[in-house]
Amino acid sequence: METFFSFLEKRVDDCSSLLCVGLDPHIPDLKEPTAASALDFCLNLVKQTVPYAAAFKPNAAFFEVFGAEGWTALKQVIEAIQEESYRMGSMIPVILDAKRGDIASTAEAYAKSAFENLGAHCITLSPYLGKDSIEPFIQDQEKGVFLLCKTSNTGSGDLQDLTLTPTLLPLGEGQGERVFYLYEHVAKLAQTWNTKNNIGLVVGATHIDAMKRVRAIAPDLWFLAPGVGAQGGELESALKAGLRKDGMGILIPISRGISRAKSPTKAAAEIRDQIVNIRRQQGY
Amino acid sequence: METFFSFLEKRVDDCSSLLCVGLDPHIPDLKEPTAASALDFCLNLVKQTVPYAAAFKPNAAFFEVFGAEGWTALKQVIEAIQEESYRMGSMIPVILDAKRGDIASTAEAYAKSAFENLGAHCITLSPYLGKDSIEPFIQDQEKGVFLLCKTSNTGSGDLQDLTLTPTLLPLGEGQGERVFYLYEHVAKLAQTWNTKNNIGLVVGATHIDAMKRVRAIAPDLWFLAPGVGAQGGELESALKAGLRKDGMGILIPISRGISRAKSPTKAAAEIRDQIVNIRRQQGY
Repeated sequence: METFFSFLEKRVDDCSSLLCVGLDPHIPDLKEPTAASALDFCLNLVKQTVPYAAAFKPNAAFFEVFGAEGWTALKQVIEAIQEESYRMGSMIPVILDAKRGDIASTAEAYAKSAFENLGAHCITLSPYLGKDSIEPFIQDQEKGVFLLCKTSNTGSGDLQDLTLTPTLLPLGEGQGERVFYLYEHVAKLAQTWNTKNNIGLVVGATHIDAMKRVRAIAPDLWFLAPGVGAQGGELESALKAGLRKDGMGILIPISRGISRAKSPTKAAAEIRDQIVNIRRQQGY
Repeated sequence: METFFSFLEKRVDDCSSLLCVGLDPHIPDLKEPTAASALDFCLNLVKQTVPYAAAFKPNAAFFEVFGAEGWTALKQVIEAIQEESYRMGSMIPVILDAKRGDIASTAEAYAKSAFENLGAHCITLSPYLGKDSIEPFIQDQEKGVFLLCKTSNTGSGDLQDLTLTPTLLPLGEGQGERVFYLYEHVAKLAQTWNTKNNIGLVVGATHIDAMKRVRAIAPDLWFLAPGVGAQGGELESALKAGLRKDGMGILIPISRGISRAKSPTKAAAEIRDQIVNIRRQQGY
């Protein structure tokens, strides 16, 4: 049975890459501060990097900032990625980085917006509202979510690193005595909720120790691991900490490290090659 | 010095109301499933309820679901509220219920989208990413945020009710021995971060005990208290638990309880009158 992550794994096989190209049309990087310029920026980046992209990740904020025209541009970017998929005969998942999180009928409207109207295959979500805020997004197993777990920013510790009382520890063998962080509880919930193979976790590449802890708790889940490059995370340590036993399980999103390179094509190819080498060293 | 909450308090005085009219154009409630119909629905609701509304709260999801046209409709709804404000000579704050939460330049783009492009005065945010995800929204003290604290849905317990280890307790007099919930920690952070009088909290009217705890921790903050009516929360118990010592400090958002009433005007007037009575009984 196909699921969001089985689609992603096919694409990873097709392109031998774990690179997720971030499409973040920051205004300072555009020729003009317009939706049309944001669209050009993204279409160019897609064209230049598509052979090396296991997935694309447009960030909704940089389109919303242009209002209705930005929304149209976002839809056009996703359509362009789908056209490239058909052209190459290899479906490239689109992860809408939107970090939504709301309840009941509101969550249903966001899911419809992301999956039906925009045509994305996956969305990033906040877990703060609990399971009923996630459910409308995971009904269709071919659509996926990445739940924020341990994020790459400095403020991530304010909530995510809080430690829980022992009664709530997700106890496992030999784990009885150690402290558990809130982000670990989120990982445990996600591992439990993932009955359709369409829930992953956002785990920053800037927190390698946290990534190891999350991998121990959620051995099956895909990670989206931002922070390589711009935020100081290192590719090799992230892959070593985050790869599953099957050599899959971690997507490396990179935005400015590619879009601001002299040649985005060359930058993406180099990152793909580094990924291939590191996976090979790890025996995959 | 004017701040978001000083504007809100002026409006509360002007209309003697703590009612926040929710603008949720659910598709089943519309004549047609179009952005134009969503716009009509909201404009009608604004016109019918404006004398009794301390604030309006459009929910972004129900506009996003219509794509670019929905985004335009949302902007037009906010403009219409501003026109009503000028007409009446009493500024009615618009709270964009968007539950966003992202970092750095992405958060800046969301803030620009909400406050500059759409013209909202306040936005709901998730606290999961920590302080640096909030900061771009509170730079301008005339713009405000409501952080999700203890939400009204059943899944809210999955994270928000987790109990923290004693080392992290926000200790106060006589509080040393009791358990602290994650949502209480969020309240404590918000109370600390609120140096410009523009941070409030979302505390569901469905959890009165939680509301009392949050009020004890955050005596100064405004609450946005969803759940009265549709989700079973009661107006009187919410006001008793949530009112500050000045008789202010809690906004009661109601959507379907008004929009689906035979006469939204009458429904809004009745709720306003109930609020006036309950506040009077409480000595305000």
